[in-house]
Amino acid sequence: MAEATRILLDESRIPHNWYNIVADLPVPPPPFLNPATSRPVGPDDLASLFPAELIAQEAGAERYVPIPPGVRDVYRLWRPTPLIRARRLERALGTPARIYYKYEGGSPSGSHKPNTAVAQAYYNAREGVGRLVTETGAGQWGSALAFACAQYDLECEVWMVRASYDQKPGRRSLMRLYGATVHASPSAATASGAAVLAGDPGSPGSLGIAISEAVEAAAADPGARYALGSVLNHVLLHQTVIGEEAIEQMAAFGETPDMIVGCAGGGSNFAGLVFPFLREKLAGRMSPVIRAVEPEACPSLTRGTYAYDFGDAAGLTPLMKMHTLGHGFVPDPIHAGGLRYHGMSPLLSHLYELGMFDAVAKGQRECFAAGRRFAGTEGIVPAPEPTHALAEVISEALRCRETGEEKVLLTALCGHGHFDLSAYDGHLSGEMEDFPLPQERIDAALAALPAP
Amino acid sequence: MAEATRILLDESRIPHNWYNIVADLPVPPPPFLNPATSRPVGPDDLASLFPAELIAQEAGAERYVPIPPGVRDVYRLWRPTPLIRARRLERALGTPARIYYKYEGGSPSGSHKPNTAVAQAYYNAREGVGRLVTETGAGQWGSALAFACAQYDLECEVWMVRASYDQKPGRRSLMRLYGATVHASPSAATASGAAVLAGDPGSPGSLGIAISEAVEAAAADPGARYALGSVLNHVLLHQTVIGEEAIEQMAAFGETPDMIVGCAGGGSNFAGLVFPFLREKLAGRMSPVIRAVEPEACPSLTRGTYAYDFGDAAGLTPLMKMHTLGHGFVPDPIHAGGLRYHGMSPLLSHLYELGMFDAVAKGQRECFAAGRRFAGTEGIVPAPEPTHALAEVISEALRCRETGEEKVLLTALCGHGHFDLSAYDGHLSGEMEDFPLPQERIDAALAALPAP
Repeated sequence: MAEATRILLDESRIPHNWYNIVADLPVPPPPFLNPATSRPVGPDDLASLFPAELIAQEAGAERYVPIPPGVRDVYRLWRPTPLIRARRLERALGTPARIYYKYEGGSPSGSHKPNTAVAQAYYNAREGVGRLVTETGAGQWGSALAFACAQYDLECEVWMVRASYDQKPGRRSLMRLYGATVHASPSAATASGAAVLAGDPGSPGSLGIAISEAVEAAAADPGARYALGSVLNHVLLHQTVIGEEAIEQMAAFGETPDMIVGCAGGGSNFAGLVFPFLREKLAGRMSPVIRAVEPEACPSLTRGTYAYDFGDAAGLTPLMKMHTLGHGFVPDPIHAGGLRYHGMSPLLSHLYELGMFDAVAKGQRECFAAGRRFAGTEGIVPAPEPTHALAEVISEALRCRETGEEKVLLTALCGHGHFDLSAYDGHLSGEMEDFPLPQERIDAALAALPAP
Repeated sequence: MAEATRILLDESRIPHNWYNIVADLPVPPPPFLNPATSRPVGPDDLASLFPAELIAQEAGAERYVPIPPGVRDVYRLWRPTPLIRARRLERALGTPARIYYKYEGGSPSGSHKPNTAVAQAYYNAREGVGRLVTETGAGQWGSALAFACAQYDLECEVWMVRASYDQKPGRRSLMRLYGATVHASPSAATASGAAVLAGDPGSPGSLGIAISEAVEAAAADPGARYALGSVLNHVLLHQTVIGEEAIEQMAAFGETPDMIVGCAGGGSNFAGLVFPFLREKLAGRMSPVIRAVEPEACPSLTRGTYAYDFGDAAGLTPLMKMHTLGHGFVPDPIHAGGLRYHGMSPLLSHLYELGMFDAVAKGQRECFAAGRRFAGTEGIVPAPEPTHALAEVISEALRCRETGEEKVLLTALCGHGHFDLSAYDGHLSGEMEDFPLPQERIDAALAALPAP
């Protein structure tokens, strides 16, 4: 298949297991803590939020978790996803590097998010939950969960950050088309939301506020549970289908990656791609450089601190040890809404501390230029989030042009940009801003970290 | 593969030939006429609009036209497209029918249009054309051509119907991202546009006006040519890759279709799916019922007349014998912009006269309900155009539930609806209108047909 451009796999090749990297770590990740007691969180602490199976997965240490047939049956609608060699981009760059991308944008909602949304909806439905509650920023996660709930006849209720609710009506409509109820956040429907509105009736909201509202709404209804689209261990676990398929597809190309690059916000896309490759690397079967790319405006890995912090703005979640800019940190309004989160997945943060991957931060102008270059050659318009990874891949490919190295570069194109075209307008008109982040803003947010 | 849900083909299975159904017809289609002379149009009459190879294809009678390697190389970015069995829709309908759909929405611009856009851009570039000019309604065709032009370093200039230009900024941005220049039509840049603006400065435009502007602009520049996204023989020819792949994929499923259903506006999606199957039917290898579905608001096949008419509003094109509502007919504002054309492909109209397929018309409320049902089960949100075919497929599947027939139904899902979600809002709110078409409006438009 040396001449191939796309490797497609038959649906029989959908992985049968998710991969849990915790089983292969030299040091286990630090536990979540109950903020009231400072003691490790147990299953009972989470029972009002998640179904038992997901709580078990969150704390699990088994290397492989079987994917239930009822989940694989829905995955078949779009999985396995293609692995594509970006031959036309390579040619345009004049690079001897070979560039591969795993494309997740062909899913029903257009991103990688349904990989975990389907699993979460499945387990909730199986345990008799009637309603799933969540938050969403720009709407990638909310629309994935709404799709998944429609597959298992679950009600779905979404708190969508007000700024996106007003500016991104397409994703709002998509959630409703799948049958979900969508609230603008902050809303008067929760105490957390009402408190924000009391102080600022015109508040544009934030992901942290929306999480607080969804957690509160789920906890208040015994028939409902909460669902999170990134950050947590079980979410990263479900995304490993990306990397497992990519390993088989790279082998079909006859290639071993020298560098694997992914964008990282909460971390689920990055982890989904790289965890299976990290297993191979730990076992000595390959030795790729592994790199996360985050936005300059929200650099939790490269400029945050590694400390216990809350996952939401109001402090309703357990404390998680993670790279964080502080739970009160509000990122500047970059277009990559999926990367605007103050923290990084605790599991990924732990791996970062162990030196298992490195990270760089990029300004959005470079990223959108990379996205435009990609669209003009490969055709697919990338969502703003994966343009961060593409910018790094292009940099590396251009370095290879200088050195003559025939490096094998692999990235995940985790979503298409057909919902994000207005963001490209700013790039095309030359009016897009970078948001360099002054150290004082980070220091101020970190000063409000909960006491250790 | 009896248990399969999706049949994917390796890129080596991209067809090597387009299929020209004219070679297999008992009666050749009537020629296009020069309106000034009433004589058949010759290659010279079209030389200012199209490159020589496309003019040859337009009049060609060879059964197979080889697809150049330079076209197949770009097709590899997304072709072959999947053929999917709609198992979850079948289950929701409780039907014994088996429903299959060929999905074209995974292309770079999200529809089937790049199949011909790439071919047209390739031949123009090979013949030294520097600039392609076209019109677009909602933007499906314009964005496909912009993508294709980017692949062959051609300039691309698009006249986009003003109403869509204002209401569908996403597709406008997509064209610009691919490097195209986009004008709102009517524009002051052409005499046709200026004349309309002089009479009505706030004109929302129409496809017929936009065609006039693009044709005028192409004819005025010796380095430019015009490109059309439907209607013409060479456009339908290029779309036959859809049906050729589908024949191989249906065989892999072990199935022979009993009914094939497609939506028809200008006719390129419908022809692309059904022509190869019609070849098989003419050869006696299968005997499917073949059905076109058109909108009640623009029923050229079911309520138009079969006569010579212009392809555009201003009368700049050759006269084509086709099913038409009259070139002055302006359809009501249904959401399926791609089906709002006063005529039907002359070649398809000829086949319809020969009795090779039948046709029905649907109101958009039924179609959007079908689209919502499809999205809720299969996940993919259909563009408004293919919801017309889905509505008929669902009707037939429900008839099968009554009769117990295990019919095999095949349709083409020619585009995703991620650009069209605001249209679904009207459906969800119950405010969507049907537009039944009074006979007087058809009679009035037909009264203005050019004299025979």
